[in-house]
Amino acid sequence: MSRQVAIVGVGMVPVRKQSADGLRQLGRNAILAALEDAALDRVDALYLGNMLADELSGQKHVAALVASHAGLAGIEAIHVRAATASGAAALRVAYLAVASGQVELAMAAGVELMSGGVSPTPALTRALDAKHEIPYGLTMIETNARLMALYLERYGAHPEDFANFAVNAHRNAVNNPYALFRKRVDLETVNSSRLIRAPLRLYDCAPICDGAAALILCPADRATSFCETPVQILASKVATDVFAVQDRDDPLALEAARQAGALAYGQAGISPADVDFFELHDAFSIMACLQLEAAGFAERGRGWQMAADGEVFCEGRLPISTMGGLKARGHPIGASALYQVAEIVLQMRGQAGANQLSRADVAMTQSVGGAGTTIFVHILAR
Amino acid sequence: MSRQVAIVGVGMVPVRKQSADGLRQLGRNAILAALEDAALDRVDALYLGNMLADELSGQKHVAALVASHAGLAGIEAIHVRAATASGAAALRVAYLAVASGQVELAMAAGVELMSGGVSPTPALTRALDAKHEIPYGLTMIETNARLMALYLERYGAHPEDFANFAVNAHRNAVNNPYALFRKRVDLETVNSSRLIRAPLRLYDCAPICDGAAALILCPADRATSFCETPVQILASKVATDVFAVQDRDDPLALEAARQAGALAYGQAGISPADVDFFELHDAFSIMACLQLEAAGFAERGRGWQMAADGEVFCEGRLPISTMGGLKARGHPIGASALYQVAEIVLQMRGQAGANQLSRADVAMTQSVGGAGTTIFVHILAR
Repeated sequence: MSRQVAIVGVGMVPVRKQSADGLRQLGRNAILAALEDAALDRVDALYLGNMLADELSGQKHVAALVASHAGLAGIEAIHVRAATASGAAALRVAYLAVASGQVELAMAAGVELMSGGVSPTPALTRALDAKHEIPYGLTMIETNARLMALYLERYGAHPEDFANFAVNAHRNAVNNPYALFRKRVDLETVNSSRLIRAPLRLYDCAPICDGAAALILCPADRATSFCETPVQILASKVATDVFAVQDRDDPLALEAARQAGALAYGQAGISPADVDFFELHDAFSIMACLQLEAAGFAERGRGWQMAADGEVFCEGRLPISTMGGLKARGHPIGASALYQVAEIVLQMRGQAGANQLSRADVAMTQSVGGAGTTIFVHILAR
Repeated sequence: MSRQVAIVGVGMVPVRKQSADGLRQLGRNAILAALEDAALDRVDALYLGNMLADELSGQKHVAALVASHAGLAGIEAIHVRAATASGAAALRVAYLAVASGQVELAMAAGVELMSGGVSPTPALTRALDAKHEIPYGLTMIETNARLMALYLERYGAHPEDFANFAVNAHRNAVNNPYALFRKRVDLETVNSSRLIRAPLRLYDCAPICDGAAALILCPADRATSFCETPVQILASKVATDVFAVQDRDDPLALEAARQAGALAYGQAGISPADVDFFELHDAFSIMACLQLEAAGFAERGRGWQMAADGEVFCEGRLPISTMGGLKARGHPIGASALYQVAEIVLQMRGQAGANQLSRADVAMTQSVGGAGTTIFVHILAR
């Protein structure tokens, strides 16, 4: 009954520690780049992901603001959020809009400006529960550190087992012109990096940064009129978990990822073995590990081994973070999922440069809101 | 191609100046009331409107938080915003979700807690442009005062001509158990009320308050299994304007309302004459007046006359704010549009009590994000 939906345009701005552009310029630049990519001068709707503009830019009406600044006043513009997965939420709504038959050309975009002078940490922490988590000293870092400590203890893994997540991400970011960190790191650098909050080291954590990315979606049966190699959205699914980590039966199960993944495999009619590569939400290396397990690529307790064995490298069994991931391309929160999908599109078009995968027919992406609370899964195919 | 969509459940909590419940409890109570109304114990997705929780509740991941607190962990939950029209944005996304065939039972809900101890004014002002409006002293009140002053000057109207907007709203709120202000006011009280910022008086402005409301949407062809009198969504449309009022060709044209209205009339296949009643966004009486004009119910410059002549009363030609409107039922921002639609549903079911309209077959509702920047129009029918 639903219309099939395809992606026919992508736009990105380079991720930076401190962009010369403000929030609205970043958003506009990504939007204009996506329009140019699809040879369009307009879309019908903009669904915009952003998490932090309230506090960091004093700006709450961001979708209309960015639409107007991009010269698109008039169009539908809606701001969509799910904390750190806000970009994926925008993609989800754009998908629903086109699938519904109500919108022909939809843009899913994301923008985040974290360098505006206000510390982003308090605003980021608001992804957690203001009553039952934050007053007890929990932050995103503290929560992920506890998850990693619990994991190490339960499964007898070592912090060094996770180091290849960062090595892989940095190796791939070198060849991505939009990436923040374009330098290789070796295992020793990762393993001796500064402890942020044990067992998390600096290289276990994605950086604070600025960025924006945009995608154009249209009905699949019109896609080739905009784009030579459209990318099909085979599945779009979302699930949530019990809000606070400590209230879950098993904090390491990442139940929402398991559930959203199972629904997405069902919608796409595929199994994990059919996935050629996986753009996951490596905001923390423990989160990457748990996603590999919850998505069915590794046994529980063994996700780290796919990194340790090099299976996640571009030449491995299941490449992840093929253009640098959140860790090294950067994690401009509300834009991150749009970067992930834009990179998948480049891989499927054969435009991924030195990181071009030999098999890039089917990809999965995950985005994580909060500490595993909201998980978006999209499966794409060329 | 789209599925037809119907509303089969509504839930509201009483609007209060200071609720005894917190953000999550308000949201849960509205959700549980809507579930009970439709005799359901679960939906597939929650699209939640909220504007101010970031600053006022220190909480950014509100859709998942409210879903979890309502016992719905697992479901899709997405936070949807368009500043002061955030509730309508949630309804729009819920409509798209069901129309797409991807979601069977969707909840559109809204919650706002403004009494938490932090002044809401700075956060509310962030509906405007942080670069080109707020630094020049503009607030939502200042902007609406200027619009009203410009209107009075251009059309030779008088502030007293607007007084019946408040009289009507308060008259109708008396009979609404969920309304904040359940007392009549007369013209003299309105016209002698405190000047907030000339020409705006106290009774030209909707109050700061707490509230939550929820709707359940499903495919129209399944609606009668949940509800005796389902309400059909005949049209759902959104348009934006150039962001800042001073940059528009004609600040009094409310161009986004005209455009979204025209699109909605087209989708529904009706004209203004077919609309039995109109739940509009009377956050300020000037905004109510401009909406009557932009939606085609009054000539430009004559919207106030529909109030002055009593045409907007429940017994008039085009009843508005039939359960009190934003002015007297209250304007808990992210929930307001859901209250509007819930009230339309009650009218169409014949459950509007003393305010029951004699003709309630077709209704329009508008919600305004910012100073006329984003306008949502929904047309409903029984």
